[in-house]
Amino acid sequence: MVKIQPRILSGFMEFTPAEQIKFNQIKDVIRYTYEEFGFSPLDTPVLELSEVLLAKAGGETEKQIYRFMRGDTDISMRFDLTVPLARYVVMNQNALTFPFKRYQIGKVYRGERAQKGRFREFYQADIDVIGMDKLDISYDAEMPAIIYNVFKKLGLSKFVINISNRKLLKGLMESLGLADKSGDVLRIVDKIAKIGKDKVVEELGNIGLGKESIDTIIRFIEIDGDNKKVFESLQSFGIENETFTKGLSELTEVINSLAVLGVPEKNYKINLTITRGLDYYTGTIYETMLDDYPQFGSICSGGRYDDLAGFYTDKKLPGVGISIGLTRLFASLLDSGLIKVGEATPANVMVIPITNAEKENALSLSADLRALGIKVLTFTEDNKFKAKLNYANKIGVPFVAIIGEDEAKNHSSVIKDMATGEQLTLSLEDVSTFLIGKVMEAAKEKILKS
Amino acid sequence: MVKIQPRILSGFMEFTPAEQIKFNQIKDVIRYTYEEFGFSPLDTPVLELSEVLLAKAGGETEKQIYRFMRGDTDISMRFDLTVPLARYVVMNQNALTFPFKRYQIGKVYRGERAQKGRFREFYQADIDVIGMDKLDISYDAEMPAIIYNVFKKLGLSKFVINISNRKLLKGLMESLGLADKSGDVLRIVDKIAKIGKDKVVEELGNIGLGKESIDTIIRFIEIDGDNKKVFESLQSFGIENETFTKGLSELTEVINSLAVLGVPEKNYKINLTITRGLDYYTGTIYETMLDDYPQFGSICSGGRYDDLAGFYTDKKLPGVGISIGLTRLFASLLDSGLIKVGEATPANVMVIPITNAEKENALSLSADLRALGIKVLTFTEDNKFKAKLNYANKIGVPFVAIIGEDEAKNHSSVIKDMATGEQLTLSLEDVSTFLIGKVMEAAKEKILKS
Repeated sequence: MVKIQPRILSGFMEFTPAEQIKFNQIKDVIRYTYEEFGFSPLDTPVLELSEVLLAKAGGETEKQIYRFMRGDTDISMRFDLTVPLARYVVMNQNALTFPFKRYQIGKVYRGERAQKGRFREFYQADIDVIGMDKLDISYDAEMPAIIYNVFKKLGLSKFVINISNRKLLKGLMESLGLADKSGDVLRIVDKIAKIGKDKVVEELGNIGLGKESIDTIIRFIEIDGDNKKVFESLQSFGIENETFTKGLSELTEVINSLAVLGVPEKNYKINLTITRGLDYYTGTIYETMLDDYPQFGSICSGGRYDDLAGFYTDKKLPGVGISIGLTRLFASLLDSGLIKVGEATPANVMVIPITNAEKENALSLSADLRALGIKVLTFTEDNKFKAKLNYANKIGVPFVAIIGEDEAKNHSSVIKDMATGEQLTLSLEDVSTFLIGKVMEAAKEKILKS
Repeated sequence: MVKIQPRILSGFMEFTPAEQIKFNQIKDVIRYTYEEFGFSPLDTPVLELSEVLLAKAGGETEKQIYRFMRGDTDISMRFDLTVPLARYVVMNQNALTFPFKRYQIGKVYRGERAQKGRFREFYQADIDVIGMDKLDISYDAEMPAIIYNVFKKLGLSKFVINISNRKLLKGLMESLGLADKSGDVLRIVDKIAKIGKDKVVEELGNIGLGKESIDTIIRFIEIDGDNKKVFESLQSFGIENETFTKGLSELTEVINSLAVLGVPEKNYKINLTITRGLDYYTGTIYETMLDDYPQFGSICSGGRYDDLAGFYTDKKLPGVGISIGLTRLFASLLDSGLIKVGEATPANVMVIPITNAEKENALSLSADLRALGIKVLTFTEDNKFKAKLNYANKIGVPFVAIIGEDEAKNHSSVIKDMATGEQLTLSLEDVSTFLIGKVMEAAKEKILKS
């Protein structure tokens, strides 16, 4: 028979069992934290009607879509989780209760040019709060609190959530009589980390701004220092403009609430250079950077928007949300050694009968341990004992429980710590007590080291 | 602006938040149980090269595939989780440790004719153990033990895992000198629950079997009773045939091990009428029926196979596995009322400031509760108090913690049980103790009632 060579599509990825276990741990932490803040799960289809999914898309995005016909139906694969959310909220607006808090962790598809760190199928982990007509500003403070809790639980401590409010720069532009340029200015300033200050000055000149306006903009975005100092500097600009005042009051409440929500000052910062390129955002915005890995870019971004679903409805649906590019983040953490993959099995212990004569004892001990919540791999393959231990080593299981003729007779088992090589003989009851203790210790360990 | 009507593709489904929470609980129980038995997670791409994915497919399956070209690449969406497993195992055979135990819970795609209870995108929850060259029979006993544990944890008790071994009927056919008919006979017998005994007799006649052979086959598959009685009856057939003897010895070990693994006899049964239509299966086979809902069909099926990946490799990769059709099972449980959807939020409590003056107190209490592992929704929208309580009612959160002027002053909160309407004023410390107790009580409740 002619064999087909097994392979996967270029730009797609899948993990080894040990990597997948680590990936799932991170995904679980994200999910758990989202639920801790009262977000409800949502799971929309991967396929959507192209007409619906692409109602707003255009340009680069549209080119990347996986789109095909099936019979008469024009189908597209989702390329983010925001458009499906907008569709879901409008479809189900009468059944939902607003503010509607939802999280979705799922795969999205973009047929980008294949390059390192870019995938064509990748996980996004999104949360959004959607209001009907209005949405209180304190939800804007919840977002950085959630980011903080996710990364703290993962074991990362050296990160900064950069926070700004697009109304500030927009208000400044209005006060300078340059309201019509504010979209361009926000887009140019957004690039400062990439292109540098001189280039930003040059580009601001190119769109027709005078030297004085440019100086003011640069002085504005260079405002720096702790939060108190930033607010003083913003006040000292003396801008009398409604948009600016609104932005300042929003930012003030967000920053004050963050302290109440227990987020340490070292993990967030007002940064007026961030603007998020998209016109979509209208207020608070976020970008999160790892202190020691600026090359990762923002690992979690988002912001406030006034209008989630204008292409489906006339109803005003303001919202605020963040998104973690999970697959990319994981690949970066793995590359940089911040994640060390470990066990290739979720089992806490592997039970090994020395010969087939002890197979029933091994199955019975396994069942007893499972009833206590311990995850157990029973190795019943009829191999040499050395091969059995070798399997345990390769798969990385932390403990083995060995049952030979003597142990079967004495209702005991030899427990071996695979990391240290230490072993001790325990009665079957003590085996479970011992392992429960070890499982609880292991649960306290952080997923990442930073 | 012209609005696009938001809608989803026919045959696709998505849930309300309350349904999704229930669905995820069931998915979590399945995942947890799979891990408890030492299965490692796997997450393969949804898209595969058509050449690779369809190496074996044909006929009906191939017609249902979502398949499309992108540039020069012929792409298909996965239609099950078994072919991707075969591809993965062969691609990674040098990195994997055998026996390789993996679970995968993911969406698969089949463009079937739309009809009730059939979906074009649905979850499968699969486990398989794959050996290299050989695989011990005791893994065949693990499968029903896992099914039992899943359904027990869900709160279902009235179900029967039907077990047989294809070698028995195959061996019987060989002993009758009808080895060449055994594929047909297995396929015909497979339909007995649907078409009835008379029709089976008729169809066995149609493929050229004589009356005596048909009588023997019918007597054979009608063997019934408890396990001890079934084994006696099987012995009394006096079949001297290697295949049959092998099947009997395998079945005996599986049944004996099930008792050791703690599976009660009322939840499994040797049933010689089940054969699984597919030629793929070569030994132990399983079908699981709910006692009171035979119309659901088998809610969890699988079996032993000799050759996972013959279309990719010459290596022999025997395995055993089961699959739960999760979306279909969930829809059936929902339809029949066995699942009652409840809360539309994962939160254990909603914290409500009576006015904006207590917003900070509410955020602060929320953060303290979260630090203790309690899931908290903070309601900060500036609504009337009645509207806030109304939101809590609609979203189904079990408790609310109310903070007004007095409570803010006294560091206390009024806790209201939304189910009973009872309320009591507690100091902030006592709020957490009270809620932790309630969360632990709730965790003990079963997901389904049966």
